[in-house]
Amino acid sequence: MSYYGRMGRTPAHPDVAQFDLQQILEALVDPVRRSIVSQLVASGTDIKCGDFDIPVSKSTATHHFNVLREAGLIRQYYVGTARMNALRRDDMDAAFPGLITAITP
Amino acid sequence: MSYYGRMGRTPAHPDVAQFDLQQILEALVDPVRRSIVSQLVASGTDIKCGDFDIPVSKSTATHHFNVLREAGLIRQYYVGTARMNALRRDDMDAAFPGLITAITP
Repeated sequence: MSYYGRMGRTPAHPDVAQFDLQQILEALVDPVRRSIVSQLVASGTDIKCGDFDIPVSKSTATHHFNVLREAGLIRQYYVGTARMNALRRDDMDAAFPGLITAITP
Repeated sequence: MSYYGRMGRTPAHPDVAQFDLQQILEALVDPVRRSIVSQLVASGTDIKCGDFDIPVSKSTATHHFNVLREAGLIRQYYVGTARMNALRRDDMDAAFPGLITAITP
């Protein structure tokens, strides 16, 4: 991984071995964050930060994305200037089988 | 149900149809409450309020039991003077399949 890959625009993501249930539940207890996860599940594709249907400001949304990313629920990456969000479904299912299914309508 | 059954020592419990994911996650995000659920899962039996291994005062424990009961996670009943706690496993599995399994070690 390049210097810029580590320190620049690619944000840090925990490995599956670092997943912490307490941190994951603290992420999922917030209805806006759970809505972001549900929209990723429903769409089946990665979604740009600006394209979610959530009733919060851009800066608040950024906070919610950070909490989800730091808990391991989403992976963020750039396509040009767009920050994309991917559900880490396989990683979550490996660490806590059934959790995503249980909490998404 | 008798008057005393409704108003007296038998506390109120929500029906499965009343279960609310937000309320359930707010109950489960607390590590002490999650420990109570885990101990019920591990034991496979109902447990008296005083017999849980939790690092809180009796009055704090009572609060945690109330939150779990109101969310539908446990059923409480009396045997003599002892308040017993039963995991509502079947009810939770019906409402949110896999949730209990996912959040208990």
